Amino acid sequence: MKRLTLAFAALPLLAAAPSPEKPALAPSEIVAAAPVADWVRIAPADLMVMELAPDAKGKGRRVVIQLMPPPFSQGWVGNIRRLVAARWYDGVSVNRVQDNYVTQWGDAEGEDPKKAKKLPEGLEVLTHAAYVSRLSEWQAQNAQRDADRQSKQVVGKLLPANVEAYPAWHSRDAYVAWVDFYSGWPVATSGYSWDQTWWPVHCYGMVGVGRGLSPDTGSGAELYTVIGHAPRHLDRNIALVGRVIEGIEHLSSLPRGTEVLGIYKSAEERTPIMSVRMGTEVNGLPPFEYLSTESDSFARYADSRANRRDAFFNVPAGGADICNIPVPVRRVKR
Amino acid sequence: MKRLTLAFAALPLLAAAPSPEKPALAPSEIVAAAPVADWVRIAPADLMVMELAPDAKGKGRRVVIQLMPPPFSQGWVGNIRRLVAARWYDGVSVNRVQDNYVTQWGDAEGEDPKKAKKLPEGLEVLTHAAYVSRLSEWQAQNAQRDADRQSKQVVGKLLPANVEAYPAWHSRDAYVAWVDFYSGWPVATSGYSWDQTWWPVHCYGMVGVGRGLSPDTGSGAELYTVIGHAPRHLDRNIALVGRVIEGIEHLSSLPRGTEVLGIYKSAEERTPIMSVRMGTEVNGLPPFEYLSTESDSFARYADSRANRRDAFFNVPAGGADICNIPVPVRRVKR
Repeated sequence: MKRLTLAFAALPLLAAAPSPEKPALAPSEIVAAAPVADWVRIAPADLMVMELAPDAKGKGRRVVIQLMPPPFSQGWVGNIRRLVAARWYDGVSVNRVQDNYVTQWGDAEGEDPKKAKKLPEGLEVLTHAAYVSRLSEWQAQNAQRDADRQSKQVVGKLLPANVEAYPAWHSRDAYVAWVDFYSGWPVATSGYSWDQTWWPVHCYGMVGVGRGLSPDTGSGAELYTVIGHAPRHLDRNIALVGRVIEGIEHLSSLPRGTEVLGIYKSAEERTPIMSVRMGTEVNGLPPFEYLSTESDSFARYADSRANRRDAFFNVPAGGADICNIPVPVRRVKR
Repeated sequence: MKRLTLAFAALPLLAAAPSPEKPALAPSEIVAAAPVADWVRIAPADLMVMELAPDAKGKGRRVVIQLMPPPFSQGWVGNIRRLVAARWYDGVSVNRVQDNYVTQWGDAEGEDPKKAKKLPEGLEVLTHAAYVSRLSEWQAQNAQRDADRQSKQVVGKLLPANVEAYPAWHSRDAYVAWVDFYSGWPVATSGYSWDQTWWPVHCYGMVGVGRGLSPDTGSGAELYTVIGHAPRHLDRNIALVGRVIEGIEHLSSLPRGTEVLGIYKSAEERTPIMSVRMGTEVNGLPPFEYLSTESDSFARYADSRANRRDAFFNVPAGGADICNIPVPVRRVKR
């Protein structure tokens, strides 16, 4: 007992010194410590600002959405830009909230040809083929990353060529052969061949394009965001066009609809959308940044998500699915 | 054009005949068609009925929770039964709602020794070791299932012995070597050795025991449910004790807390819990059933979750993570 007492008494003195037992940094601490150079500014032209009607207490509800960069879903993204320019979304509403699935907004009368709100001219009609992309940018980018990892040879197929140099979570996906991040976005591919295709995946907060039955792919007038466990079965079946980077709680905490698929029963239950503007049109919008998914900070962050060793944790998971590695996004203080 | 017109004209006649192009059943249709024998009644003694204060419109908010069966987490489940018997939860509140993570309830003053609500006598103190279980029941059950699948031999290690006879989703998990369902619950294991252990996993709607830093494992007085993407990094780090089987929307659609970790800033934001009773104490509680995870219907349902071929889908995912295969639960009409 004497030794135990002494050991405890000695602790305060030791606490200030470096200790191998010191808990590892939490993911949030790694993100907080990331150098400025590891953050990427999001162009205001790629932001969409949706103002919902104020809540019951009169408080504003702003949702900020980042649109997806090339090469993904650019036909639909172009349509959405046209719809914003035409002020088409102003006055439509949130019509569907299905628990553990999606919140959806658009024209509540959109399926009734007599009552539907007229769409602007010039919207592109897309095919299913546009759900996936051949990523030449990706190839170039990863050739560099592979080189950094001292790959012996980069073979003539698309990357990654040196699979074993990457953390295991890339290849331990329940759905596909390989998952990764591309310029800040979670993406997947089914294999490594010359015609290899990639596509963005349905994680929490991702924004997609509502559609009817095939061959319809939707115009972009009807949008939804994921408010539950990742519905990855929608990957390659619906176009993803962006993600909510601020204000997701205004969509995820809405009352659930009681009709089939979470549709609201009455018009009174719908939340009106007052306006949707591009980031360039909104005075005083703060700048936003995401943590570069090609940075060392992000690699450390992803590793810490897969292997929590901070104080609360006893057993590191030893893995993480891609939707449990959310890309850090922050407002920049000006 | 003539032929096209004829083809269309012929369609109504053909529609009634069986067609190879007919879309496969949706998961919900497979569940709806499951025979009565494939459903398992949940004992009212394993149900916990939590009544939240009515919403702003005066409408009741009832949450029904199914407690976890042996061998999992039974120390904490026993504590929770004691807490219900002592009416301890009556008058505590929902104090934390963190978007894409958890809703947590208990004594808002629980961390202040002077103000904390006194706990009943006899609560068990559990260790981390109790987060996992050696599943002898599981072994017996799977020996039968393996036999059904015409396994050549069942070797002397724990099951599954004939991994290749099982659908691929079992071994395509981002976190562990094998995932499965045990008596209606999603479970995981890290490998196949004689001391193999199993544990329940953190899917949407699962209920767990809040705790402080290790070695604390919580008593069960502080509970939470998952309201976002599966936080599987909590597996083996917190005790899971049950799942919400009805009324999750009353917890998932609450306003998010604005303090760190989603804690509410003011007492007014908290949702009071009026009462928690066991199912046996609640008059008029309908019976509930879950779809037996050992049934053929469930196997077909899981396969359809992993390979959607119903009308809406163009590309089957070819996989499903275990939390994207939610166990069907239904109210029984009496």
